[in-house]
Amino acid sequence: MEYSGWVESGNLIPNAYPKVEWSKEATSLIDGGWGWGQSASYLATETVIASARKYGTATVVLSRTNHVGRLGEYVDLISQAGMMGIAFCNTGGPIVAPFGGVKRVLGTNPYAWSIPGADNYNYVLDFSTAVVAAGKIILAGMSGESIEPGSLIDKNGQPTTNAADLADGGSLLAFGGHKGSGLSVLIDLAAGILSGNMPAAISDSGFGNGTIFMAVDISRYATPELFRSVASKFEAIMHNAGKPDSVLMPGEFEYKTKLDREVAGISVSSGVRENILEIAEKYGVDPLNLREISRK
Amino acid sequence: MEYSGWVESGNLIPNAYPKVEWSKEATSLIDGGWGWGQSASYLATETVIASARKYGTATVVLSRTNHVGRLGEYVDLISQAGMMGIAFCNTGGPIVAPFGGVKRVLGTNPYAWSIPGADNYNYVLDFSTAVVAAGKIILAGMSGESIEPGSLIDKNGQPTTNAADLADGGSLLAFGGHKGSGLSVLIDLAAGILSGNMPAAISDSGFGNGTIFMAVDISRYATPELFRSVASKFEAIMHNAGKPDSVLMPGEFEYKTKLDREVAGISVSSGVRENILEIAEKYGVDPLNLREISRK
Repeated sequence: MEYSGWVESGNLIPNAYPKVEWSKEATSLIDGGWGWGQSASYLATETVIASARKYGTATVVLSRTNHVGRLGEYVDLISQAGMMGIAFCNTGGPIVAPFGGVKRVLGTNPYAWSIPGADNYNYVLDFSTAVVAAGKIILAGMSGESIEPGSLIDKNGQPTTNAADLADGGSLLAFGGHKGSGLSVLIDLAAGILSGNMPAAISDSGFGNGTIFMAVDISRYATPELFRSVASKFEAIMHNAGKPDSVLMPGEFEYKTKLDREVAGISVSSGVRENILEIAEKYGVDPLNLREISRK
Repeated sequence: MEYSGWVESGNLIPNAYPKVEWSKEATSLIDGGWGWGQSASYLATETVIASARKYGTATVVLSRTNHVGRLGEYVDLISQAGMMGIAFCNTGGPIVAPFGGVKRVLGTNPYAWSIPGADNYNYVLDFSTAVVAAGKIILAGMSGESIEPGSLIDKNGQPTTNAADLADGGSLLAFGGHKGSGLSVLIDLAAGILSGNMPAAISDSGFGNGTIFMAVDISRYATPELFRSVASKFEAIMHNAGKPDSVLMPGEFEYKTKLDREVAGISVSSGVRENILEIAEKYGVDPLNLREISRK
């Protein structure tokens, strides 16, 4: 219920339109107007593609925006246009301890990177710089499950697999030791300062996603045919590097999941379903036949 | 003795000059002429800075070059110019197995990222996408030490801490599971194809570093004063997030090491010292008083 809750609390202005605040050569700034992060991100994506088409490469910073959703979606669109896409954002509310530390300093600051693929899908990498999402730990805590070792420390900085330690002042860990922690630090500073959102530990609002989008038009350096042909050979080598189906290209799992869901539909947990129905009733909108489907 | 060996084998043309092959708006291609990767990388760095000064952001691809050295050095120079710098390259000779795989597909494909710092040094992140460098495993094997768990698999894909398993058909692992492996895949494809160097598993030569440099002029979005002031606050929060000296900013360790070495000199292993002296004698050049110093 986060999105509707943000609207109710006034943090998200549902009828705000994002706009291009300024464009100067290959750089632009988008003002999200504190509306939906998704519509602001689509505008940023269109802008970075058009600008990279003209200048060969482009950078767009997105400011004053709420949760942007899944970054992989935007870099995928950039690669759909024949380009390499990079997107990263800082997230409000420190919950990750930096490498070597005990206290929460960083958000879960995701990073996404995409290039065109050989065939049906682009090679989209999209990850949180935390080992696991905070949501997964909270869910594990609710169901009494223990957490994967190496994901969490307690308030004293000791490694723990007890999900309850997060609520008791613990911190998530960054993936990959000092490397993932370093990525998170640079995302927080670069995206935080350039967007004006500020790093999570400094921001007053503790809210929003300062986001940077970058694109490079691959056709300046290689024809789409060459790129696809090399990618195709590379993909075959990857698929042959282990047991069948054990090695995947970035984005391959998500592509297959999408194909499955186009046939079987998207399953949601009963908790999420109840949330959707509750909000739909509250606002008097069509609940997408969820109640109907759930009866079958 | 790798560098002089490459000159002797004809892979490295020592008197080749790198040149800007073409520049078009915010994109350029540098032809390294198969000379020293370092001089080609300095030209690429100067080019990406000048281009980003004009267009706000820029991308430069470096082709036909030998080993570029430490990428952190170039992004550090980009940040010295008040910019965010990104550099990554693919490396010849597959030695890393992709996540979930057994066979060698990827090089150690490093990634570097830098932003200006608060004070005396820039925040420079520079890492191999392999858990550890192949050189460290070879050294451990020579001295009979065991390897950090999670760095290496044997030829059957089983985790091992026995360094000798690398020479026996084993593979290094990528850092951070599927996340680091995905970064390595995208580096290999993007830098490999755009530079013409080709991904390691496809390249005929098994040689050279296809490299991409990117820069964003931060002053388009934030004044240097604002950037420094926020970075300074952030750095203080980081340093306070654990025990004294336990949490470092990216590049801080390298900066302190540099200060130490400016006073104490650079210590080299006896093996490296002997190599340098041997090559100096062979080519009749001044051996930097290494013999003298080693006698003290």
